[in-house]
Amino acid sequence: MKRLIHTPEGVRDIYSEECEKKLYLQGRVQEVFDRFGYRRMDMPALEFFEVFSKELGTVPSKELYKLFDRDGNTLVLRPDFTPSVARAASMYFMEEQMPLRFCYQGNTYINYSSYRGRLRESLQMGVEFLGDNSVDADAEVLAMTACAMLQSGLKDFQISVGSVDYFQALLQDAGMPEDVVEELRRRISDKNHFGVEELIEQQKLGKGLERAFLQLPQLFGSAEVLDRALLYTHNRKAVASIERLKEIYGILKAYGYEKYISFDLGMLTQYQYYTGIIFQAYTYGSGEPLAKGGRYDNLCEYFGKKFPAVGFGIQMDQLLLSLDRQKISVPVPQGRTMILYPPAMRSAAIALAGEHRENGMDVACQCVQQGRFLEDYKAYGKRMGFGGIVYLKSMDQVSAINLSTGEVQNIDLRALLGQDS
Amino acid sequence: MKRLIHTPEGVRDIYSEECEKKLYLQGRVQEVFDRFGYRRMDMPALEFFEVFSKELGTVPSKELYKLFDRDGNTLVLRPDFTPSVARAASMYFMEEQMPLRFCYQGNTYINYSSYRGRLRESLQMGVEFLGDNSVDADAEVLAMTACAMLQSGLKDFQISVGSVDYFQALLQDAGMPEDVVEELRRRISDKNHFGVEELIEQQKLGKGLERAFLQLPQLFGSAEVLDRALLYTHNRKAVASIERLKEIYGILKAYGYEKYISFDLGMLTQYQYYTGIIFQAYTYGSGEPLAKGGRYDNLCEYFGKKFPAVGFGIQMDQLLLSLDRQKISVPVPQGRTMILYPPAMRSAAIALAGEHRENGMDVACQCVQQGRFLEDYKAYGKRMGFGGIVYLKSMDQVSAINLSTGEVQNIDLRALLGQDS
Repeated sequence: MKRLIHTPEGVRDIYSEECEKKLYLQGRVQEVFDRFGYRRMDMPALEFFEVFSKELGTVPSKELYKLFDRDGNTLVLRPDFTPSVARAASMYFMEEQMPLRFCYQGNTYINYSSYRGRLRESLQMGVEFLGDNSVDADAEVLAMTACAMLQSGLKDFQISVGSVDYFQALLQDAGMPEDVVEELRRRISDKNHFGVEELIEQQKLGKGLERAFLQLPQLFGSAEVLDRALLYTHNRKAVASIERLKEIYGILKAYGYEKYISFDLGMLTQYQYYTGIIFQAYTYGSGEPLAKGGRYDNLCEYFGKKFPAVGFGIQMDQLLLSLDRQKISVPVPQGRTMILYPPAMRSAAIALAGEHRENGMDVACQCVQQGRFLEDYKAYGKRMGFGGIVYLKSMDQVSAINLSTGEVQNIDLRALLGQDS
Repeated sequence: MKRLIHTPEGVRDIYSEECEKKLYLQGRVQEVFDRFGYRRMDMPALEFFEVFSKELGTVPSKELYKLFDRDGNTLVLRPDFTPSVARAASMYFMEEQMPLRFCYQGNTYINYSSYRGRLRESLQMGVEFLGDNSVDADAEVLAMTACAMLQSGLKDFQISVGSVDYFQALLQDAGMPEDVVEELRRRISDKNHFGVEELIEQQKLGKGLERAFLQLPQLFGSAEVLDRALLYTHNRKAVASIERLKEIYGILKAYGYEKYISFDLGMLTQYQYYTGIIFQAYTYGSGEPLAKGGRYDNLCEYFGKKFPAVGFGIQMDQLLLSLDRQKISVPVPQGRTMILYPPAMRSAAIALAGEHRENGMDVACQCVQQGRFLEDYKAYGKRMGFGGIVYLKSMDQVSAINLSTGEVQNIDLRALLGQDS
């Protein structure tokens, strides 16, 4: 029985005030997506396994929830929205050459091998801006990330921006074997400075290249990092990637969001489909990113459409948790009203509730149950977050009770119902 | 490749105008749930298999999407919300004895054995009213069903109401073997009048009881059906169920929704957890119900809480389809605006877009791409449902183009940006 009423590990129910906060946040974030002219697209939670295949560089296969359809095809619960949007955009807009702006919201499913309290079903809201490889597009999604954080009520956050190209360019110059690259990635991700040093020194690279790799884990911080990065390499691709970051930073000044931006050229990503900028939003009190994004210019090609793209997704559960920890209040809807009535007053109660609802009020219309009294409903109303009770004892005895102050007001029911008294 | 960009059978992408219509409808229906004082609850899509076990009488096991977690537990994708809400309510409100009103929205997953174009992932929105076994509660959920249909724009619909109790009472009196009962259910569901007749005559029941069963497939229509039903039985449970339907009908008159209500005592349900009223909403042009609901007074007990309950769920895909077939227009958001600019005008474009967004406008800010001209963006804007383009050619040449009329207006950018010109 105990197990029966529980949810499986890694998934959960959300109810009462937490759910109202979540819905409010979803509304605010969606508003940002709308204001920037993005159109909603809803993809199914079930996709063919191939949409998230290894060669795309998405979530590892062993962390996918897999199941089979009746024809024996392997389906997965989507672990990530970006490949789904790339698929759908390629399918429905195969001929379109102009930019497409899509937003989405929904749950993603990752069957983490080590649980450690991580959510296996988590709500993501994000955007994908396809068909535009300009710095304007990069800056737009970064600006939207900042805007969404601000709209949610967060004040202290940083969006850390890196570039896949810079590291790739250095790797190209170095020509190290695959397994060394893997190990290097791991050590840089862990900010294991000594480990990086040791590994790089073994490779006998040229002095300049060696220095570039060794500096990598320290190339994070404010915009001056970009100038420093230029000191360590003359590789054209690497230099171009830094120049691009500078341009993007310049545009973000026009948006007024530069103070939320920092850089991290040692930032690597699990998702191998990224090709240009990559970024993550953080706030204090949580090691997990609130949002993640980047440019993926080759992903759509996998689905048959040559189309550059950039996007980001917000981890709504992380955002909610951070607001909670930072004691940032999220407005929940005004208390509902309970119209309480004995059976004889039913018609009046229904009419009154109808009028209130027409006026945009949220009203639960409750018949007094056998053996229960007004006091029971007052206590219950407080437990359930009602703002007040209108008690229709009889046509002549109607009182409005404010549940927070306890104040009671006698009211004229006929006037309320718009009848002459 | 062709397969790669497709969705699996029975699930689909929703985008562009269809998606906007769907979101609008979701908003209207949620508003009805809010107005009636229902609180949202979000349950995970993954539940333990036991929550939908055979003994509850929900979707057949072979139509469940099953998968395994890392501990070897069988999980299912929820096929139905009601058992999930009953589970969650039992878990978090175990001690609560007063009424609970919850609403939900999300996808349900049914792996239909015969496909026939049915959706395997479909959006449901519904409510569950727990802890109240009164006729008021039954009438409330019926009124909400009608209200939700009306709010969605539907005018011609009928909510067909039956009762599990009436048929159960007749079965109790008859004492027929299980397999005969199954066959009888099937023939009544199919409105196979001759088949029912043949089967019942073989059973050698008493004359009164025989007549009651034979009349069952014909006991549908307006409220006078209830009086007719009383002619065929004296079974106390059957009579009580009819009296209850009459009472509910009386309350629905107070709501003003009686014209949307009809009765069908031959209505049976796939969901064995129903114990009292059952109902389905229909409109012309679709054989599939738009909404389904009923009373289930024993379901929560399965999760350890004695708690009567009644609820309904709306099949949002069916509702959307019906509106479409009946050519009932669903308002989609006002056209977005495109602010189009060459790179030199970037800062002005970002500032102008920011002001428009502050004022609640939806604005896509688009840098003119190489080799493209205003005419390209006009054609594109029309394809994508933009309302207009503001083209910032230079500080002195700014024009607003209405994409539906083609009208062009020259505007003063400095005034728009709130600067002195």
